[in-house]
Amino acid sequence: MSTVTKVQNPEADPRVKAVFDDIRTTRKSDFINNMWLYLAFDPDLLEKTWAEVKAVMATPSALDPVVKEMLYIAVSVTNGCSYCAHSHTAAAKAKGMTGEQHADLLRVIALAAKTNQLAVALQVPVDAAFDADRQA
Amino acid sequence: MSTVTKVQNPEADPRVKAVFDDIRTTRKSDFINNMWLYLAFDPDLLEKTWAEVKAVMATPSALDPVVKEMLYIAVSVTNGCSYCAHSHTAAAKAKGMTGEQHADLLRVIALAAKTNQLAVALQVPVDAAFDADRQA
Amino acid sequence: MSTVTKVQNPEADPRVKAVFDDIRTTRKSDFINNMWLYLAFDPDLLEKTWAEVKAVMATPSALDPVVKEMLYIAVSVTNGCSYCAHSHTAAAKAKGMTGEQHADLLRVIALAAKTNQLAVALQVPVDAAFDADRQA
Amino acid sequence: MSTVTKVQNPEADPRVKAVFDDIRTTRKSDFINNMWLYLAFDPDLLEKTWAEVKAVMATPSALDPVVKEMLYIAVSVTNGCSYCAHSHTAAAKAKGMTGEQHADLLRVIALAAKTNQLAVALQVPVDAAFDADRQA
Amino acid sequence: MSTVTKVQNPEADPRVKAVFDDIRTTRKSDFINNMWLYLAFDPDLLEKTWAEVKAVMATPSALDPVVKEMLYIAVSVTNGCSYCAHSHTAAAKAKGMTGEQHADLLRVIALAAKTNQLAVALQVPVDAAFDADRQA
Amino acid sequence: MSTVTKVQNPEADPRVKAVFDDIRTTRKSDFINNMWLYLAFDPDLLEKTWAEVKAVMATPSALDPVVKEMLYIAVSVTNGCSYCAHSHTAAAKAKGMTGEQHADLLRVIALAAKTNQLAVALQVPVDAAFDADRQA
Repeated sequence: MSTVTKVQNPEADPRVKAVFDDIRTTRKSDFINNMWLYLAFDPDLLEKTWAEVKAVMATPSALDPVVKEMLYIAVSVTNGCSYCAHSHTAAAKAKGMTGEQHADLLRVIALAAKTNQLAVALQVPVDAAFDADRQA
Repeated sequence: MSTVTKVQNPEADPRVKAVFDDIRTTRKSDFINNMWLYLAFDPDLLEKTWAEVKAVMATPSALDPVVKEMLYIAVSVTNGCSYCAHSHTAAAKAKGMTGEQHADLLRVIALAAKTNQLAVALQVPVDAAFDADRQA
Repeated sequence: MSTVTKVQNPEADPRVKAVFDDIRTTRKSDFINNMWLYLAFDPDLLEKTWAEVKAVMATPSALDPVVKEMLYIAVSVTNGCSYCAHSHTAAAKAKGMTGEQHADLLRVIALAAKTNQLAVALQVPVDAAFDADRQA
Repeated sequence: MSTVTKVQNPEADPRVKAVFDDIRTTRKSDFINNMWLYLAFDPDLLEKTWAEVKAVMATPSALDPVVKEMLYIAVSVTNGCSYCAHSHTAAAKAKGMTGEQHADLLRVIALAAKTNQLAVALQVPVDAAFDADRQA
Repeated sequence: MSTVTKVQNPEADPRVKAVFDDIRTTRKSDFINNMWLYLAFDPDLLEKTWAEVKAVMATPSALDPVVKEMLYIAVSVTNGCSYCAHSHTAAAKAKGMTGEQHADLLRVIALAAKTNQLAVALQVPVDAAFDADRQA
Repeated sequence: MSTVTKVQNPEADPRVKAVFDDIRTTRKSDFINNMWLYLAFDPDLLEKTWAEVKAVMATPSALDPVVKEMLYIAVSVTNGCSYCAHSHTAAAKAKGMTGEQHADLLRVIALAAKTNQLAVALQVPVDAAFDADRQA
């Protein structure tokens, strides 16, 4: 079940085919997951979304690919996105996240959710020492 | 402004003093930030919260301390916790997060929030390939 | 699966029947969706919820009915409400939302989620120029 | 207070100056709001964020500019982003949102938050009739 | 700072005056807090919001008034609503919430946020035993 | 479907068996729900999570057990945690929550979500009267 109709034979559209080919090449896998199959209903949205995902997640940068996937999990879980929790946990494992790292990730994001709740409930005032302009 | 009254002279309570001393020792700093000053209104809550924060964040584990702080930022930002965004960004910088890593972190969590929104809006069905039991 | 037991033969209760009749008349359709079938477990909650939905969503007002449904989708998706994303996307389409408008809606709410994340992460101070009292 | 240090004389960097010039031209105003001033700490993030905001929000598309700003408000409020609620309410007014439309927007997003809460609390099962594939 | 202009002399409008008078009578206090002062920009929204708050929160029902305020705090904190966390914590105290109850409330909502995070991260399947229809 | 592989024969691990035995004793029931079965993938996380749940939820404290379950529901629903909404609604009923209390709970959390949305949309400034330090 979805809110948009899944396109039949999406690669008949050359823009969709180009994106799917690039996904397969980038990931060295023939598997195209549902996120892209459903986004194909609007080729422009598909192209731009994939371009950004590729630039941020599949291009070498200041953070390690596994760390980036773990950050993605942290946001996705906090937002309650079931699809994203599944897809990015699978991606993190594929990129090398160990069982110990997975458990550690869970410990950190669970604790963060807990202390976020306390800080908001107490309405703790922000310490002046945390001001980046003051630190400068 | 806060929802609990800040305790005057909190270290008059030996349980509070013990926690504050441990915070100072663990962090090698005299600074006690507002989160702990306000939590001191209930010594039990203060003790248990600090014990968990110390165990998860200040004890060597499978993830690097800077990575753990970045995961904390990811959750705190997604939850909209202003205090936590400030305190954990300061902590991440103190533990070595560079400006390039900070920008990269922002790119990842911003993209995650964006694709979370798309996946929920489309109600994309979870691919069977992501099932951990199937992968086993 | 649900957290309340679905009422068998809910229209045996005249208050429930009156609400369901009004839903059918207002929508010019015999279909009663699950939200109302499950809310029937408490006739008072059913009556008040429907009265408000009818007043806000099915009564001519300053905003177009399709725009109101799109706003409903924006909130529902951000809250991660799967049922609501489904029901209000279907409603928006039934009221005339085109495929191009749907894609545009997705682009806007995805971008909003992304820049929300950046603004919270940076803790950007609110510009004085945005103060409605100053504008007055 | 912010989590990044505000750049002094940001337009000394030609990439930042080019973005700020484009913001001024696009908006026909000399005012640069804090979001862009703070994002200037990373020219790449500034450029890409502005490019997407301009493409989605300042380019004619299937939805009216005021509607797009109202959708932005809906997401920002649901995410609890104070800065974004302020900046996009100001933008919506600047683009013509009337007081009556503003009140109507509030009525819709408040009701949506309320029924989202009910649907999640009841765990209402999604009706098969809402499935886009079935509708196709 | 606010997104709507605060009405000068709001009680010049008889509809606003009637609501404010009812707030004062219901609460046995002359104090009108900002929520109502700002909602006065739209008398219809003011009337309907107050009517619902009065019916749900100030009318005897199956739950104790202090419990209802604590539930309000739980939702408000989870939504990150600073104003609401403040106003409902003050209300709960005014209605008799003790310091021990406040600390207990914090323990429960902090733990809930933590295990919510774990359940979503693990994508734990719902046990059939929790189905209300099966329990019936 | 889950993001971790369900352990086969989890009680072969004595640490897991000890936790499961304590759950059965504490709850006076043989039923172990999926949350604990899945958490068993990491015995340390299982032990610590259960210890905290037992201390907060199954130990006499300033709040009634049913009230604590209702607060848990309020947070879980606001976070959109489907599993948690199910498990804690079942727990609240098992501990004596009546149908009238359930409906009242829904009324309160739905109203809270609605007025949270209004307060954030209006960016209502916090009244000085709500400051706990001022009240002291």
